[in-house]
Formats: sequence, structure tokens, C-alpha cells
Amino acid sequence: MKFQAEIDVMPKKEILDPQGKAVTGSMKNLGLAEIQNVRIGKHISLEIDAATEEAANQKVDEACKNLLANLIMESYSFKLNKV
Amino acid sequence: MKFQAEIDVMPKKEILDPQGKAVTGSMKNLGLAEIQNVRIGKHISLEIDAATEEAANQKVDEACKNLLANLIMESYSFKLNKV
Repeated sequence: MKFQAEIDVMPKKEILDPQGKAVTGSMKNLGLAEIQNVRIGKHISLEIDAATEEAANQKVDEACKNLLANLIMESYSFKLNKV
Repeated sequence: MKFQAEIDVMPKKEILDPQGKAVTGSMKNLGLAEIQNVRIGKHISLEIDAATEEAANQKVDEACKNLLANLIMESYSFKLNKV
């Protein structure tokens, strides 16, 4: 079975996010001062072949831990959809 | 009312994604050859103050169009949650 995974990798809350801070500042200049607390991370989509959803889940988790996220500074979450 | 927006900005399908290609290649070396078609974009979370959900929707759309996404190369989607 083929699954599509949608993964979000975000900087942890305790970690400064200078890119997000810069964008928050720019919102004011665009006349969008009501936008606050911008945080910027990565969104990763991928396809995975696996026998069961559980197996796909485990593989994606492994990929996040070993390659996609730096667990010291980032946290991740993902959703699987059957395609 | 305060809303939390979760925005995904992804390279368009017709556009090459060299970072994603590199990660797809690395998956093999990690023993995760069943992972294919990795595409990498941005995930942005932000807070917005607005009178109604519709107003918040419009403001976030404006922020995406004017600042967060490059519409020539990227497409975006977002979800709003009341907080």
C-alpha cells in the first residue's frame, strides 16, 4: 500500500526563531500588525510503500528522527493518508 | 478573537526541488528506500487577532500572497483554528 506523509518540523518553543521574528516585524510594514508570533519551520511531503499503516508510521518516524528533524532544536509531527 | 494559522508553502509540482531530491537519495542510505518523492517546503505558524474567522482568513491570505509565498514558484494552503 502506498501512503502520503505530511510532516511538519518546527523549531522548539524554547528556541529563538530569528526568521520568524523578522517576518513578524515585516507584517507591520505590510499593514498586518494583527499578525503575531510567526514561527517558521519545514513542511515535508513524501510517499512511502508499506504493508500496513503501522509499518508506514514507524518508517516515517524513523526518517524524521534520523534525517528530517534535528531533535535538539526541532520537534516534528506528521499525518499519514492512504493514496 | 484570536486565531492560530498553520500555513504550508510548497514548491509547485512543475518546479524541481533539489533539496527534496537530495533527501530522497539519502533515504536509501538510511535503509528507507521505500520512501520516495520527498518534497520540502515551509511550514509557518502564526497568531492573528480578528473580529471574525472570515476576516482572519482574508488577512492570512493577504500575508501569504504578499510575504510568505512566492506565487511564481510556490503554492500555499492554510488552516485556521480559534484559540
